[in-house]
This record gives sequence, structure tokens and C-alpha cells, in this order.
Amino acid sequence: MSEPRIAADIITDENAKRENALTSDYEALGANLARRGVDIEAITAKVAEFFVAVPSWGVGTGGTRFSRFPGIGEPRNIFDKLDDCAVIQQLTRATPTVSLHIPWDKADPKELKAKADALGLGFDAMNSNTFSDAPDQPHSYKYGSLSHVDAAVRAQAVEHNIECIEIGKAIGSKALTVWIGDGSNFPGQSNFTKAFERYLAAMGKIYQKLPEDWRIFSEHKMYEPAFYSTVVQDWGTNYLIASTLGEKAFCLVDLGHHAPNTNIEMIVARLIQFGKLGGFHFNDSKYGDDDLDAGAIEPYRLFLVFNELVDAEHRGVKGFHPAHMIDQSHNVTDPIESLISSANEIRRAYAQALLVDRAALSGYQDENDALMASETLKRAYRIDVEPILAEARRRAGGAIDPIAAYRASGYRQQVGKERPAVKGGSGGIV
Amino acid sequence: MSEPRIAADIITDENAKRENALTSDYEALGANLARRGVDIEAITAKVAEFFVAVPSWGVGTGGTRFSRFPGIGEPRNIFDKLDDCAVIQQLTRATPTVSLHIPWDKADPKELKAKADALGLGFDAMNSNTFSDAPDQPHSYKYGSLSHVDAAVRAQAVEHNIECIEIGKAIGSKALTVWIGDGSNFPGQSNFTKAFERYLAAMGKIYQKLPEDWRIFSEHKMYEPAFYSTVVQDWGTNYLIASTLGEKAFCLVDLGHHAPNTNIEMIVARLIQFGKLGGFHFNDSKYGDDDLDAGAIEPYRLFLVFNELVDAEHRGVKGFHPAHMIDQSHNVTDPIESLISSANEIRRAYAQALLVDRAALSGYQDENDALMASETLKRAYRIDVEPILAEARRRAGGAIDPIAAYRASGYRQQVGKERPAVKGGSGGIV
Amino acid sequence: MSEPRIAADIITDENAKRENALTSDYEALGANLARRGVDIEAITAKVAEFFVAVPSWGVGTGGTRFSRFPGIGEPRNIFDKLDDCAVIQQLTRATPTVSLHIPWDKADPKELKAKADALGLGFDAMNSNTFSDAPDQPHSYKYGSLSHVDAAVRAQAVEHNIECIEIGKAIGSKALTVWIGDGSNFPGQSNFTKAFERYLAAMGKIYQKLPEDWRIFSEHKMYEPAFYSTVVQDWGTNYLIASTLGEKAFCLVDLGHHAPNTNIEMIVARLIQFGKLGGFHFNDSKYGDDDLDAGAIEPYRLFLVFNELVDAEHRGVKGFHPAHMIDQSHNVTDPIESLISSANEIRRAYAQALLVDRAALSGYQDENDALMASETLKRAYRIDVEPILAEARRRAGGAIDPIAAYRASGYRQQVGKERPAVKGGSGGIV
Amino acid sequence: MSEPRIAADIITDENAKRENALTSDYEALGANLARRGVDIEAITAKVAEFFVAVPSWGVGTGGTRFSRFPGIGEPRNIFDKLDDCAVIQQLTRATPTVSLHIPWDKADPKELKAKADALGLGFDAMNSNTFSDAPDQPHSYKYGSLSHVDAAVRAQAVEHNIECIEIGKAIGSKALTVWIGDGSNFPGQSNFTKAFERYLAAMGKIYQKLPEDWRIFSEHKMYEPAFYSTVVQDWGTNYLIASTLGEKAFCLVDLGHHAPNTNIEMIVARLIQFGKLGGFHFNDSKYGDDDLDAGAIEPYRLFLVFNELVDAEHRGVKGFHPAHMIDQSHNVTDPIESLISSANEIRRAYAQALLVDRAALSGYQDENDALMASETLKRAYRIDVEPILAEARRRAGGAIDPIAAYRASGYRQQVGKERPAVKGGSGGIV
Repeated sequence: MSEPRIAADIITDENAKRENALTSDYEALGANLARRGVDIEAITAKVAEFFVAVPSWGVGTGGTRFSRFPGIGEPRNIFDKLDDCAVIQQLTRATPTVSLHIPWDKADPKELKAKADALGLGFDAMNSNTFSDAPDQPHSYKYGSLSHVDAAVRAQAVEHNIECIEIGKAIGSKALTVWIGDGSNFPGQSNFTKAFERYLAAMGKIYQKLPEDWRIFSEHKMYEPAFYSTVVQDWGTNYLIASTLGEKAFCLVDLGHHAPNTNIEMIVARLIQFGKLGGFHFNDSKYGDDDLDAGAIEPYRLFLVFNELVDAEHRGVKGFHPAHMIDQSHNVTDPIESLISSANEIRRAYAQALLVDRAALSGYQDENDALMASETLKRAYRIDVEPILAEARRRAGGAIDPIAAYRASGYRQQVGKERPAVKGGSGGIV
Repeated sequence: MSEPRIAADIITDENAKRENALTSDYEALGANLARRGVDIEAITAKVAEFFVAVPSWGVGTGGTRFSRFPGIGEPRNIFDKLDDCAVIQQLTRATPTVSLHIPWDKADPKELKAKADALGLGFDAMNSNTFSDAPDQPHSYKYGSLSHVDAAVRAQAVEHNIECIEIGKAIGSKALTVWIGDGSNFPGQSNFTKAFERYLAAMGKIYQKLPEDWRIFSEHKMYEPAFYSTVVQDWGTNYLIASTLGEKAFCLVDLGHHAPNTNIEMIVARLIQFGKLGGFHFNDSKYGDDDLDAGAIEPYRLFLVFNELVDAEHRGVKGFHPAHMIDQSHNVTDPIESLISSANEIRRAYAQALLVDRAALSGYQDENDALMASETLKRAYRIDVEPILAEARRRAGGAIDPIAAYRASGYRQQVGKERPAVKGGSGGIV
Repeated sequence: MSEPRIAADIITDENAKRENALTSDYEALGANLARRGVDIEAITAKVAEFFVAVPSWGVGTGGTRFSRFPGIGEPRNIFDKLDDCAVIQQLTRATPTVSLHIPWDKADPKELKAKADALGLGFDAMNSNTFSDAPDQPHSYKYGSLSHVDAAVRAQAVEHNIECIEIGKAIGSKALTVWIGDGSNFPGQSNFTKAFERYLAAMGKIYQKLPEDWRIFSEHKMYEPAFYSTVVQDWGTNYLIASTLGEKAFCLVDLGHHAPNTNIEMIVARLIQFGKLGGFHFNDSKYGDDDLDAGAIEPYRLFLVFNELVDAEHRGVKGFHPAHMIDQSHNVTDPIESLISSANEIRRAYAQALLVDRAALSGYQDENDALMASETLKRAYRIDVEPILAEARRRAGGAIDPIAAYRASGYRQQVGKERPAVKGGSGGIV
Repeated sequence: MSEPRIAADIITDENAKRENALTSDYEALGANLARRGVDIEAITAKVAEFFVAVPSWGVGTGGTRFSRFPGIGEPRNIFDKLDDCAVIQQLTRATPTVSLHIPWDKADPKELKAKADALGLGFDAMNSNTFSDAPDQPHSYKYGSLSHVDAAVRAQAVEHNIECIEIGKAIGSKALTVWIGDGSNFPGQSNFTKAFERYLAAMGKIYQKLPEDWRIFSEHKMYEPAFYSTVVQDWGTNYLIASTLGEKAFCLVDLGHHAPNTNIEMIVARLIQFGKLGGFHFNDSKYGDDDLDAGAIEPYRLFLVFNELVDAEHRGVKGFHPAHMIDQSHNVTDPIESLISSANEIRRAYAQALLVDRAALSGYQDENDALMASETLKRAYRIDVEPILAEARRRAGGAIDPIAAYRASGYRQQVGKERPAVKGGSGGIV
């Protein structure tokens, strides 16, 4: 039986170096929060129960159309990827599940399940892939998949999604995420209406095969890989999809898939209000779908998104349990480190949002006291909640400083010896 | 009885100078189109039946928050504005109706109707104003109107909209356009969900007062005057409004109210597909809601919007009769000239869209022949349809070159004598 | 002699309520920083010496082209404005100077100087106004000012700027800020090259009149009030101006004047490197030149700007003393509160930037350790430096919680009685 | 000896079908232009002398980071690519030169020269590649090239550029284009100032090796492949480079490398005014560096760029001879067809710009007649100049309808037989 690859005593040793400081910081923060009328233990408990799924594809080095520069010890297959994911969970205790991408992660479901069980991991939403061609695939997705003009291509894409459901059922997943790259590069290339009609019909066929206790997430994106129009281009279209399909259909919000300047937290609020928020692909961005590490560019924006989630909990929205997933491309860092850091940043935003004084906020809103309402959010955001995050990790058996522990473990060097070096490439542009 | 202010013989004289050239150009174009299998007369007939409403507020010089630089002969009231609108219609024969803005244009409905009848004008959609405070108004809209936290302010805004309906009924309008500036300038200032719930409830009250044969248009806008969040911020929210309110509720698309890089023609297609396109506020923009003259910046984009409208007609979409209105701010031109030019540009885009070979386009789409599909649109777009536009005007009694005729008429100088000079101001920022 | 309007004992009383908590928080933070090898006293001392100028126009309620909703007690003239500025300085001890805007603030320089002296205020950069027409001005700026096609208009604009210098000399200012709205709304309206040649020639004439110990700041802005092209549209053009004019000419960076997604901190770095950073107009924005309160929308971006400033100090850049000014529009808050808060946010970003471990950062940069370099910035940014800011204020005689002290003082209600209520207006669009 | 692959009689036959119509259209247009005082023959002559270089990498199917979907008959090497380029030139007579990309196109210079000579082609600017790793390269460009922290990597990048110059000298090129992907994905990862100092020093070394009659073009780009900061991010930085390096250094403008909403034609004007416009990479875009076909998205923008170029010629700017190059990614079309079409669109914009009545335009500008200035540009833009373009091609031995002639030739099917099918890939993200 395989086990997490980092020896427990490394974590113990690393934690030992930091326990005194953590205790001191945690107590100081506790005292500060107590003065605000907040029980730090309640916050720590909630943070400890907050989890985010790791994407299997995220543990490999990402790239751009110009190039991909692999690191050492690149995972060779889904089993290597699961090993890497287990390291992230072992250190953070925030990422107990993995999201698979088919066909990239295709393998015997029993073996997948056994490997995950051995590593203490579960499986989150399944992800289908109809934006690139698999080697043995009869029809190409060059001109689309679920919205393709040719019924045979659409049928192939539908079948592929149904296969993803089947694999997911075998390994314990409860959701299917559908992101397609369908769109056009030229005005006129595609008839917007007919393409969307075809998409809805194809999605309807997938929806029919969805088990009762599953959810299906459609994911919108403004552009890329299509550069003039995209079939599922924004949350408006995404809402139309989810409401057309039925009550098991929800919208997935990827933080990097919006037009410049978009108020994303407001989209989150709208989808919650109309019962269609399925969950998130967390990441950060400055220009487009940059897939940077969560919280790396605009940490306040991430906080504002979590402010909506906590507000919805606070208002007692029924049936509200959005899926939390990371979706990033790690081009210049060790992917394991980026995922550790990102899981931490996501929990940070959650913890900060929990600290918002919602009664005060609501009062300021009712009085149109814009300045103090803003300040109320900022007061929570400014709190350095790292002691809470660290303590939650420590108590669950994780590392106080997971990046330091990871580096101390030598995991990357170790797998670098086992896994052959991968050549870089010049991306999609030949 | 008042009559259009430009003497008929001026138009006759100006047209006389251009008739030979027009005849020659019209025939040459007719021959060219005939080779493409298109009957120019059919196009001219359709163009002659295409109309766009002029906004009453558009005939005054616009400004920015920094300043407003009035021109000579600024209209003093709605009756002066109707005179100016009549000139536009007299010369273009494309703008038989005027959209009023209340309370700016508030007057005895009978006088309004009589004046318009005398000028041969009708009234298009009514526009309410809850984004600025009227002098005698009990409650301020500083912190919102239909979504305000205070029920009394919401009630005032609802009443104002109902009053707009009442005025509209008296003068023959059949639609109410609701654009509100409600939103927030700070994260936390407003609870997105509660604000939208309040908005929907208030709009519901207005909707109840809507006559059976009226439509209500809600208009979305990304930002301005609110700079962090806006209650009706995009077409997704706008669709939720229209679908919540009922079958007389539709979405209005202003071409300048979108995020950077947005594919607007696709939004148009989606709203048509789901039965909720109410109509347009035409204008052009480069940065934000610049309210520049239609077609001045990206004429191909305007064409692509019309391509969707003509495609919908071609597909025989039922109950499809979107409202066409101009909404621009004329800061550096004579507003009458800009409106003449814009009406012309809008008809130009329509004429070009009519010339698209839709059978060929559809065939290229089915074959994924992106290049030829794009080229099919371009071939129509490249045609200089000015002879068609000019001939449609001429046949209807308008001017072949309406700007030249307007300048020849001396109308501006004439009203400059009657209407006292207006001082400029330094806008909203003092 | 006039004195600051808030009674000293109000500040004393308000501070008394918070002194114990501040002492405790300051000590806890000191201990935390000591563990990082940082002396809190050194940071507090630097923060206490950091100042930012308040704009005279900022103490009035701002507006948009749609409307302006005044608050109570609006300042009637520059003397009222100076009273308001004195309150901000009295409470924050961060804003000892005021930036004037001519002709809005035109008055007898001796009286200006006497009033400021009495209030303990000084004067920062002078601001000219050629983007709106003054009542008695011979030529209109409707079609531009320093770049106008007509030499007479350019001469008038040059004279106005020289007058600003003269007033500034009399009151102790040492800089002139030139922002013009010149540009165009239509392709073709302006010849880009000729307009810029005229601008450079006109600025050259102003530059000749600049005293030896003065600096001239040119300010760029992407758009508004011109919506197709703007003469000084970006930092590239701004650099050309400053390098053409001479060594007393520098570029002013307003944080809201850039294209969407622009990396502003990088522009700051480039201007420092090439010796042309003159200073800042601080504010925040989400969409365009929103003029929101500094740090309200993207606080991390403000930190990254200060990271460049502190890095330049750290590298010992010669002759580096950028001007710090606020430029905001307070549409929905009490302007005094927004300016107090903004001064605080700006100092916050500065304090956080001072806390960056620059040796560690430099090491990570040299090793291409992107993750730890990012984390090094974040570790400084996450520190809640409010105790440092509060202590710096307290020691200088200001308020621990300046907003609370301001509200306790009843200043706004008091001036509301003295200053007559102002009617709102519907902005520039009527 | 190799010869263009399309048989001359195919062009002859295809032209024969269209000659009568062309004659008729050309005459009608000539008459129309004559009425405007324009000699069509003068325009046709200028168009016939306007050329644009084809990028060698453009004849292969492009892709995105998500996937690449190859077409049939993909070129296997630079010799196949030159064959494809020769077809484009044979049909359009607008693309007599090819731009090479090293190391992708590395081959014996003598063979390159011989092949090009045989095909009647020349070589335009050389392009270096330090944004991806070549197989046998000692140092990786993962963390940068000319701005890398490690002197050895910078030296390697400098050497590579010098090698490009050497190859270029051997084959008759006269320019080197340097585009680097250097930048960072995280705040803090890179010190902006030090990185730019290193870049300038490295470029200085390349510049020293530049032959007297060569030019060096630096190319800026806002983002991608780096997603937080890019060393050469905009024209401001690009200008600093060119002015620092010397009189043989110029800025290259790629139409897709700017921030959203940027007024590109104004940047072109500024670079011309300050003597630093090197040339263009033509393409079109809607969102980012989409690399779509020139004129496909915003044809009026392309016209406005050419309006600046023709205006500069008209004003007699000295030493003005910008390089014209295409840089596109053809993901869903036959690359040969896209390049044929794009060369045509570029000539179209040039022809339209030649038709602008510059005396009238200048007059309207001097009178601030914004409406007529705009209309003057539009009147030229609206002219369907296809007869001029077709006639210029025909007279030079090209095809009246080059796409139709290309399809009739069966070239793609023919090379499809010779060149083995290429498998698609899933881009850089695996």
C-alpha cells in the first residue's frame, strides 16, 4: 500500500521549530479577536472544515502557447499525480480531494480508487475534455464539440461526457464539470443562435445520464481558445444553460474567465440569489485567463468573493454548498508549492470573511454609511489570520509552515530521481 | 400651427445639385447588386421603412463631469427640442419619433401632442429619471432609487415611473425605458442581494401599472455613475429582471454599456433567442459609456449587431420588433448634425446587413469554412450603400445630403437668434 | 486668527478611550516585528514623516455627468475649504499641505497665505484649469487649450498657467501640475502630430517662466473628457513631454488614468529609472478614472506602488522626492471622512512597504524563487500596521481613530449651520 | 530548380472568368473617383508597389495552449514553408519577402538563398527566439533571456541574436526583430528596474554587432507568456529602448500587443513624430494577442493606422520607411488562405487611406469641424477598393480572386499527399 511520501517526522521536526512562535501569535490574535467579541476557536474550527479540491492537471508544470518549461520530477501519469496531491493534503490538510481530467487521467477506476484510498484522498468533480483531440478519437474537435455543426461530433462529445460520469460513479465523484472551448475566430464563422441550440440539446443528453445525487457544472469563459466568440461566454449564458437543463445543473465560476474590470463578487451574489451557483475554479489573474496562483494578484478580490459566500451562509440560503476547486497553471513554480500556497490563500480569504462584523455591516448599509461599511470589510481583511490557518493545519496533523516542510522533505529531488526528465516544447504555435 | 423649420425649397435646391450624381451612383450600384442577384429596389424599400427614435435630450449639447460647452441656439425646453427633432426628421425621413425624458421634458401632454402632431412627429419610449434629483422632490436619490434601502424613496421612484407611463399614455407612447444609476462606490456599501430584491419588488409595482399594449425596457450598464457595483450591471442581470417581471418586460441594449472587449452582437443573439430583446440605445464608444455618434468608432461592430437583427428576421423569429433608439452625448458637434449623421449610419448598417448572402453564409458555416464565412459578411459590409440611403431619403422628401442641406438652411444661426445663449459650466465636479 | 475647528479636548477625550488598547496592540506588533528583526520605532518614525497633500477640490462633494448630490455644509469658497483641510490635518497629522486649483480657488494670495498660516497649513503643487471655461474668459476651451489649433487660445492657456505660477510663488508653492482635457471625440477631428507639436511648444513657454526651484508636472490620462483620443494619453507621451521640456519637468502618475489591466507599479519603476517620476495623484478605481478613495478597491496595488518607492529609496536613487497628492471625487461620503481615510490608507501602504524584507526579496529574485519572492511581499502586506499609524498620529497630536473623533466633534453639523445648503444638479448632460 | 507550385494556366483560366466584371467595376470606380478628383491609375500604381512580408511560421497551423489542430499538408521544414510562401506571392503579388524565425527555420544559408531565389522570394527581418528552449541549448529561458538574472543565460541569448544577424547577412536580410517573453508571474518575482537594466545592456551588445545598413526592431507586448509583468510591456518602454540603443534602433508595433481600448493609431503617430517607428506586425484581435487575420475584427482600426502612415508620407516625414510584416496564428483556416486574405486586407486599408481628401481633412481640423473631419475619413473608408486591389494583382501576374484561384489549383490537396499528416497536441498545458 502506498502512503504519503513525506515522512511524518519531517513534519514533526519542522513544526517543533515553530510551535512556540505559533502559540504566541495565536494567543495574541485570540486576545485581539476577543476584544472584537470574536471567539478564535470558532473561527479555527470553521477553517479546519473548509476544503478545496486540487486539480490533477495542476501538479504538472503548465505552459503557454509559446512554450512549456518542465520542472524536475514531472508526474508521468495519474498515479504520480495522486502522489503529489497527497503531499499537498498531508501538509495543508485543506485538500482532501482531487479533480480528474479525462482522458488525461484515464485509468482503471478500481486502481484509481485503491490508490486514492491508500493515500487518504477522495475525488471531486470529474472534468471532461473536448477542447483537444485524443489520439484515437474518430472526429476532431477543431471546429467545436457539443455545439459542432456535425451531429456525429456532438454525439462523440456527449458520449465522452457520459463516460466521465461512468468513471466518476466508480470512484465516488458526485459532479461533472463541463468546459468547452467551442466558439469562433471570425465574425460569420458561427451562427450564435444555432450553435447555442445545438449545445443545449447536447447538454440535455448528458444531463439525462446524470445520477440523481450528482450535479453538473457548466463553466463560462469570455475567450480563449476561441478569439472572436465563445459559446458559453459569460454568466448570463451560463445561467440560461443551468436554468434550461434543470435542478441538478449549476454554474461554475472561474475567477479568471471574465471581461476586464468585471465585478465578479456580484456575479457570485446573483447566482446564489437565483439558486444556480455551483462552485468555483479558484485562481488569480491580471490580464485574461492567466491561471495564476489564488490571491497572488488581487487578494482583496478573493476576499470579496468569500464575503459573498459567508454572507449567504449568514443569511441561511438553503441548499447552498458550492464546490471549491483550484484551477491554475503553474509555469514558473514547483506546482506542489503553488497548490499548497493557493489552498492556504483560499482558506485565508475564508477566515477573513468569517471575521466580518455582519451586524455592524448591515447597520452601515441601512444607514448608507458607505465609509464605515467599507471600513468594516477592511477591518476584517486587515487581520493577519495566518496563526488561525497554521493552527488549523497543525491540529489536523499538517505543517505549520507547509512550504518550509515541503522543502525540508526533499520530495521534489526524490521524485526527480524516479521520474525521467521531460523535454520542453514550443507550445501550440509550432 | 408650427411646421418644420427648414423651407422645402432649400431641400429641393440642394437635392437638385446632387440628383444627377445620385442617379448615376444608384444605377451603378444597382447593376453591381444585380450581378450578385440582389434587387436594389427591394433593399431601398426596406431601408425606407426602417426608423430610429431620436432622444429629446440628444438635441442639447452634452458634457462630461468636467465641463459642458454649449453651442449656439441651445433648445430652452421640450418644445424647442421638438423643433430640432423635426428638422432631423425633415432631412433624413428616418426619425419620425422622439423619446422623452421625464421630468426634463415635463409639460402639458396635450400641448406635447399638439406640437408633435403639427411637426409630424410621434413619441417613442418614455424615459424616467431617478438618477438625479428634481428640484421639488421630497427624497434624494443620492443613495439609490428603485433599490434604495428606504421604502419611501423606492415608493417615490415607483410613483415617478408610473407618472411617466401616464404621460406616455396621453401622448401615444407604448413603452417605458427604465435606467437607474443605483449601485455603490465601495465594497460593502451595498448588499448586492438585498438591493436586487428591492429593485425587483419595485419594478414589479411599476409593471403592474403597465398598460396591456405597452412594453417595459430595463437597461443595463456596467458602471457610471456608480463605480464599484451597479444593480443592473449586465445582460445577465437584465435577463433575470425581464424574465422575473413577465411577458411585457424586455431588455434594452445600449451599445456603450458593456465591459471592454465584450462581444455585443452575441448578447443580442442570446436575448433574441430567449425572447427578451426589447431594443437598442444606439451610439458608439471606445472606452466606456462614451456616447459617441453611432458608427463613428467601430462601424463594423454596428454592422455585426444589425447582422443579428436581419438574421433573426431571416429565420422568422416570432414577435420580433425591437425598438430602435439613439442615445448619444454630443459634446463637440452641432447635436442636430450628429443625430442626422447617426440616423444615417444606423440605416447604413441595416442596409449592409440586408445585403449579406445568407444562403452562402449558412453554407460556409455548415462546412466550417471560416474564411469564406467571414468574407461573406465583409463582401456585404464593403458595399458603399450611400446611394441607397440617399435615394430612400430623396423619395420620402428628405435631403440627398442632409448635412449639406442643414448647413445651407441656416437653421442653427436662426434659432441662435431666438434662443438666448447658455453659459457653460464645470460639470459635476466643482 | 482662525484655528482648527475641532476642539483639542475632543481629540484628547476620544484618544483617552483608545489609549490602552493602542498601547497593547502597539506592543504586540512591536514584539512580532522584533522577531522579524524589525524595530517598530524606526517604522513609526518614518511613517510620521510621510505626508500627502490634500486637494482643495476634494473637500466638496463630487459628482458625475449625471448628477451631483451635495452634502450638508458644503464649503462656499477656498477659505471654507482650507478650514476643512485643517480638520483633516488636525486629526491625521498626515496632510500638512493643500493643493489649489485655479481659478476655482482664486483669491488674494496674501489672504490665502494668512489663512493657511493661521491653520498651520502649507501649499503643495498649483493646478491650472483649462478643461472648463471661466466666466470672463475671452476664448473657449471647447476644442482644446494648450494644443488648440488657434494660437490665441493656446496663448490664453499659457497665460493662465503662468498666472498659476505667480499665485503659487506668492503663497509658497514649488510646483505646477498641468492636466489638460485636450483630445478628440472622432477619428479625424484632430491631427495627432500637429496637436502634440502645438502642446509641446505651449508647454515650452510655460516652462520658461518656471522659477529655478520649481518643478512642472505633466499628467497623463487615457480618456475623458475626450473619448476618442487624448493628447497626453499615457506615460509614453508623458515621458516625451518631460524629456523634451527639461530637467525641471516630470511626469505625474494618477492611479486611475491608465488602460484596463495596466501594471502601474511598473510604470512607476520605469519613470524612476529614467529620472522622470514627479509624483502621484492617489486614488483608486475599478473601471476608469473613478476617483474612488485610495485603497478602497485594490489595496494590494497601492502597496505594490509603494513597494517601488521604498525600493528606490533602498537603492539610493539620487534626487528622488516624488510629490504625494490625493485626487479623488467623493460622491457618496462626507469628503472630510474620505480624505482622512485615504491619507491613512496611503500611509498604510507605505508602512507595509517599509516592512518588506528587501534582502530576502533580492535573494529570492536572484534564485528565481518566484513563490518565496511573492510570499516575501505578502508577509509584509499582511501585517496589520494600524497600531503604527495610530501611534504616529497620537504622538503628533492627532487622533487615534480620526473618523470617530471627527464624528464626535460634530464639525459637519456645525458648518452645516454656517454654510447654506447647496442644490444638486444634473451634471453636464442636461 | 523549384518554381511556384501553382500552374500559370490555372491563374489565367480563373482570371479569364472574372476579367469582364473587373473591367466594368474598375471603370465604374474610376469614374466615381474621377468625380472626386482622384486618378484611379495613380492609386493602383501605389498599391502595386505596397508589399508586406509573410512570416515563415504563419504557414503552419497555429494553436493555443489548449490544443493545436493541424490541417493537411503541414509544411515539414523551412523549404516547404518557402513553397507555401511562394504560392501566396504568386497569387497576390503583394508578399515578395519572407520573415524567418531562428532556430525554427535554421538551415544552410546558401540553400535558403537558392531556394528563395528559385521561387522569386526575398527575405525580410530575421526573428530570434529566446522564449522557448531549443533542444541542444545549454541554458533554459524558463526565467528569462536578455533580462535573465544569470549572465550566462543573457550571453547565450545575445549570441543567439548575433547568430540571427549572421544568417540574415548571408541571405540578404536587413533587419533583426527582437521579441522576448521575459517578465514575471508574481509580484516580487522580478525587480523591474534591474531586469530592464540587464535587458538594455544585453541589447547593447547585440546592437554593436548590427551591420551599418541594418535596423533592429524591438517589439513590445502587454502580457503573455508572462502574466504579471513583462519587461518590454508597452510603447513607452519600447521608445526608451530604441532611444537608448541608437539611430539604427526602432520600435515595432504589433497591433494585438496593447491594453484594452488603446488608441493604437496614436502610438503610431507618436513613434513617427519622434523618429522611432520601425514597422508593424499586422494582425487583428478582439481580446488580447489573438493573432487573428488582419482586418477581420475591426477593419476601421486598420484603416486608421494606415491613415497615419499615409499622413506621414503626405507631410514628407524624412527617412520614413516602416517595415510591413504579418504576424498571425491561423488556427481554424488554411494558413495560405488567411495570409492571402490578410495581405489583401492590408493593401485595402492602404488604398482607402490613399483616398482620404487630405486637404479637406486639414481644413476641417483647422475649423474644429469634427463631424465633417470624421465624415472625410469615412468617405474614403467606405469606397469599395477591391477593383483597384484586383487590378493591381492582375497586372502583376497575380489572381483577380486569389482565394478562388488557390482553391481551384488543388495545391493543398497536392502537398497533403507529399507531406505526412501531423498529429495534434494538447498545447502547453499538459
